[in-house]
Amino acid sequence: MTTSQDADYPPMQGLTVAVVGVGLIGGSIAAALRRCGLAGRVLGVGRSQETLRQACALGLIDAACSLQEAALVADLIVLAVPVGAIPALLRAIRPVLHPHTLITDAGSTKADVARAACDLLGEHVAQFVPAHPIAGAEATGPQAADATLFEGRTVILTPLAQNSPDTRQRIAALWEATGARVVLMTPEAHDTVLACVSHLPHLLSAVFMAQVAAAHDADVRLRISGSGFRDFTRIAAGSPEMWRDIFLANRHAVLQELQGFKTVLAQAEQILQEGDAQVLHAFLEKPALARRLLGSRP
Amino acid sequence: MTTSQDADYPPMQGLTVAVVGVGLIGGSIAAALRRCGLAGRVLGVGRSQETLRQACALGLIDAACSLQEAALVADLIVLAVPVGAIPALLRAIRPVLHPHTLITDAGSTKADVARAACDLLGEHVAQFVPAHPIAGAEATGPQAADATLFEGRTVILTPLAQNSPDTRQRIAALWEATGARVVLMTPEAHDTVLACVSHLPHLLSAVFMAQVAAAHDADVRLRISGSGFRDFTRIAAGSPEMWRDIFLANRHAVLQELQGFKTVLAQAEQILQEGDAQVLHAFLEKPALARRLLGSRP
Repeated sequence: MTTSQDADYPPMQGLTVAVVGVGLIGGSIAAALRRCGLAGRVLGVGRSQETLRQACALGLIDAACSLQEAALVADLIVLAVPVGAIPALLRAIRPVLHPHTLITDAGSTKADVARAACDLLGEHVAQFVPAHPIAGAEATGPQAADATLFEGRTVILTPLAQNSPDTRQRIAALWEATGARVVLMTPEAHDTVLACVSHLPHLLSAVFMAQVAAAHDADVRLRISGSGFRDFTRIAAGSPEMWRDIFLANRHAVLQELQGFKTVLAQAEQILQEGDAQVLHAFLEKPALARRLLGSRP
Repeated sequence: MTTSQDADYPPMQGLTVAVVGVGLIGGSIAAALRRCGLAGRVLGVGRSQETLRQACALGLIDAACSLQEAALVADLIVLAVPVGAIPALLRAIRPVLHPHTLITDAGSTKADVARAACDLLGEHVAQFVPAHPIAGAEATGPQAADATLFEGRTVILTPLAQNSPDTRQRIAALWEATGARVVLMTPEAHDTVLACVSHLPHLLSAVFMAQVAAAHDADVRLRISGSGFRDFTRIAAGSPEMWRDIFLANRHAVLQELQGFKTVLAQAEQILQEGDAQVLHAFLEKPALARRLLGSRP
């Protein structure tokens, strides 16, 4: 026996897709889903009329509409907003949501999104499969949207216990249609791993950049900086709004990863203070090898 | 009245240039000086016969020879080796050096190099103008050498008190001939600024990468890592030998910059623990703005 949702899903092509938040990520999802034929009509929802107008002019969306209008007509809703904005969106769409509408998101943390879905979507919770595409770019806004942004990138799906296998498969197929490879995790595992590989590096890069910018001779320092400095600090330029939400949503995992970092940093400091060349070389060799191995991966 | 050195310098074209250490940096200097006509004949000196053979095959050098042979015939000697190897080279060339041979280096620290020059070069100290080209690439070895590596990059010259104006100008002209812009600093100012914009980021990137590589699920973490992670950790792949020497030569300045970083990191940790959205946003906004400004510089 299939659930009623399973029976009612339309075929995965020519769908009416509503993208909430038509920035870099939302715009790229719209472009990618349109290119592969999965999306027929694309509706855009957002706070800024100017952004929606740009997204229309760029052909990313066919029309702008309200969240409620989108929820009434969409086969698929993609929430591409900072994670702090997701609970209010779920609360707003619940009363108008059809039982056959699929929902996914692109939020950078997942335990909080899963909790919000369970708390706020009620009878519709099974329709929402949270996701996190590990992709981004320095640029922001719909102008930076790119139909190939997710090609070869990883999208982590963190299905809810309430999702049916068919719902999971449909959302997985949707993300795969953007060219991404899909990895399944629990929301908690996602948040721990992302605290390590994304949130902590951002914090460290921001702290370092704050230190440099506060120096009395910051301008001299920045003028001398080379490509290594630019690589190391690139992530610090990311949207303060988005990162504030990420850090608030995942601060326990980030604080825990930070403890681990501080332990290794204290070891490195002691090695520097003692100045033993062999010990210092051995310390530097491990990360150099690990990073070189990563560099050669596809 | 000019000094005897000033009178004896040959014109700055078709010079016999000896490059000690024909890796990425030495090979690129050789290629750049040959391309602009400043170098006529290029001799290569190094520990590895295989590297020298490759450098010959690539046309970076015309012939390999010993350090003493190079010192006897070269108009210009470029020391492109890890800073820890420079004192032994200076000691070895002093007895055979002609009074008209210019010397420069590409070492990443400068106070130690300046000290070594004063201690070890004796009557030849005025011929050596220490330099640091702020350029590099992920790849290493003569295969990665590139005549355009220094174009638009900064080269910091840290002249010695003993250098004549003419000697300074000749070494500045030499570096400018590679396409770089030359900036003058004292060795101490160089080391402080570089501890901030290069050595501390390397240490932090290496410490972070060591932490990730030591995690029980390191492989999962690395598989999930995105472009931000790759940017942030790119410098950690750098040569452990080269970085050991840099850290040993400049550890006091690095340890001092590290104290500054730890102070700001402790502020960030407290802000995360307290979880005030406005304070967190304000903290993240400053480095984001500073980094965005840097991104738009030429």
